[in-house]
Amino acid sequence: MNHTGDGPLRGLRVIELASYIAAPLCGLTLAQLGADVLRVDPLGGTPDRHRWPLAPSGASLYWTGLNRGKRSIALDLRAEQGRRLLAELVAGADAVLTNAGNRPGQRYEDLRATRDDLIYIEVAGARGRGSVDYTADAAAGFPLATGTPETSEPTGHVLPAWDVACGLYAAVGLLAAQHDRAATGRGAHLVIGLDDVALATAGNLGYLAEAELTGAGRPRVGNAVYGTYGHAFATRDGHMMIVALTARHWNDLLAATGLTVAAHAIEVALGTDFTREEERFRHQGLLDALLQPWFAARSTTEAEAALRPTSVLWSRFRTFREIVTDGRDELLAGPLFDVLDQPGVGPHLAPGSPITGGGRTLGGPRPAPGLGDYTRELLAELGRSPADIDQLIDSGTVA
Amino acid sequence: MNHTGDGPLRGLRVIELASYIAAPLCGLTLAQLGADVLRVDPLGGTPDRHRWPLAPSGASLYWTGLNRGKRSIALDLRAEQGRRLLAELVAGADAVLTNAGNRPGQRYEDLRATRDDLIYIEVAGARGRGSVDYTADAAAGFPLATGTPETSEPTGHVLPAWDVACGLYAAVGLLAAQHDRAATGRGAHLVIGLDDVALATAGNLGYLAEAELTGAGRPRVGNAVYGTYGHAFATRDGHMMIVALTARHWNDLLAATGLTVAAHAIEVALGTDFTREEERFRHQGLLDALLQPWFAARSTTEAEAALRPTSVLWSRFRTFREIVTDGRDELLAGPLFDVLDQPGVGPHLAPGSPITGGGRTLGGPRPAPGLGDYTRELLAELGRSPADIDQLIDSGTVA
Repeated sequence: MNHTGDGPLRGLRVIELASYIAAPLCGLTLAQLGADVLRVDPLGGTPDRHRWPLAPSGASLYWTGLNRGKRSIALDLRAEQGRRLLAELVAGADAVLTNAGNRPGQRYEDLRATRDDLIYIEVAGARGRGSVDYTADAAAGFPLATGTPETSEPTGHVLPAWDVACGLYAAVGLLAAQHDRAATGRGAHLVIGLDDVALATAGNLGYLAEAELTGAGRPRVGNAVYGTYGHAFATRDGHMMIVALTARHWNDLLAATGLTVAAHAIEVALGTDFTREEERFRHQGLLDALLQPWFAARSTTEAEAALRPTSVLWSRFRTFREIVTDGRDELLAGPLFDVLDQPGVGPHLAPGSPITGGGRTLGGPRPAPGLGDYTRELLAELGRSPADIDQLIDSGTVA
Repeated sequence: MNHTGDGPLRGLRVIELASYIAAPLCGLTLAQLGADVLRVDPLGGTPDRHRWPLAPSGASLYWTGLNRGKRSIALDLRAEQGRRLLAELVAGADAVLTNAGNRPGQRYEDLRATRDDLIYIEVAGARGRGSVDYTADAAAGFPLATGTPETSEPTGHVLPAWDVACGLYAAVGLLAAQHDRAATGRGAHLVIGLDDVALATAGNLGYLAEAELTGAGRPRVGNAVYGTYGHAFATRDGHMMIVALTARHWNDLLAATGLTVAAHAIEVALGTDFTREEERFRHQGLLDALLQPWFAARSTTEAEAALRPTSVLWSRFRTFREIVTDGRDELLAGPLFDVLDQPGVGPHLAPGSPITGGGRTLGGPRPAPGLGDYTRELLAELGRSPADIDQLIDSGTVA
């Protein structure tokens, strides 16, 4: 395993003191671009080490997925000697990335002593208390706007979207701080809160301003696309998502389904113009009903064949299982996925960075380390002799 | 408006040729950190200029939300003279950010001529065809795993999560390329595809590996949290999301609700141990039923008061409207939100960067420009005289 990589971030070293999703995803993203990311794990591992989903072997696919391409050293972070080793590792690194910024020995104040221009990136929860994706989502308004108009219960997402966004903001913050340090020599202590990310996004997209300025929240519109045209159509054997944002998309959808004349007659009858996206949204139910029989009469494959030559935006709905079975060849033909033989798990399809250049991913999939797999290597890099290392292991300071 | 900012990215200049969400969010993120982001708009604006949600004035809150803190110059990008001006702007910038990478005059090949070490960041759709968030989501498996076990229809999200993630990956890619250029002098042409981001995330989180290795997809579990304990409880007057990831969270939840003894009796009766998260998940329905009466007997405010002193992870579910009304004081007390007087919209709560340092956002909210608001200023920066600028306006090359 080439842990320094050959990507744009080669030479950048990051110490990761992290669990769960956001901070490890930040580290994964940087590792894929060539950074040398060192996980400093507590003895026995972080509490998310066995989190679902699990492989048939019992290994956590979640943990291996988010920690690929990193090195792991296991230290007793409660012991003075373990903390001294952490400080030595930090002294030789560019940045610390953590979601445990309040633990003794791991705080910014503790670690800055080792490097005055330290960059310390802290993923946090809500202001003043803990938070996870699902509570941040509840607080930020999305679950009460998701689902069909008939729904009265909140509908949470399956994707931990705030963890993902928070981890990527953390990567942006770390690289921005590094850019600044290169110019000024100054370090930084940045905090990115999960709830802040969710609320900022609700603001960036205009959802909060709409609620404030119009006095009305956003209605639940099922799988429609607010303010334009989108619908999840049932085909003979599945479902397809169809989106027509522009007049060209819409006219192509009508032409492909043979409904140009019928739609025009309805426009005349209602005195409207469906090439305007807000009119398509206002008459959504009627347009869904007009188009549905065409989809219902066809298999998903037939509908795809008819839409492929057009500008219409479409996709079949796939299960995760369909993606890795029916979609396997397509995944392997693209630049992102490759078969990764992960120790403890076995060979499976795994993604590299979705950032590509020249038709290739900037960093293909590499295995996750086992807990402490790099303990000896990293202690040797700190100048410890094999005898010193044996003693640290025997004393239970490292593993 | 201080368009160069004082954040960590001050001095970095980015040309944005962009519409919809992902690429403009990338530009917003960089502008909030101090980058000088110049939107080069076509005459009349991009097709998303009037997208919903709308202010009472009819202005797009979506467009203003995503384009805050940038400068806009409007050019006739179909005319030779307009393209020459674009090339001049690019020559003085560090990077180009676009979701229109295939338009003549705007392609990497066209613009690299102006600067050999150009960084060109391109947001794309699916491999080989167009895509939007909602079709990328359908293709990546999430809508068929969202919702209650009884659901048979796909459930799409309201948050355009892939646009958000794609925009943030684009910012990471741009800053990584900048880091690399500072070391090597080399530019980069990077492409980030919406569908690639969605599929990579499904892979990073282990969802694809689970489907491949176990042969089973992930079940629909409503608002439960897969593999651990989470539930959306109905209170007397609303809903609360409750999550107990660790044994400590769980024991605190039982103590706060007075159910420690009852839960222990059930553990004994069933021969299980609810301090193990997978056991809480396996017995989810039973535990929901055990806890529900406590929530049903209380208002959300009462339940919050009981849980606040504990380690339990919780939040009430709020609508967007509740966030800006009941939650207004809390938003204004935090570092992120401020009242922004956006021309054409009026004063409203708007977020700065969720990246904070020293308890302050790295970049507070600044207004979005009107279309072409900075045309004169930017042409003057290119050395054009007032008379030249008048002529360019009169000839319809700029606006």
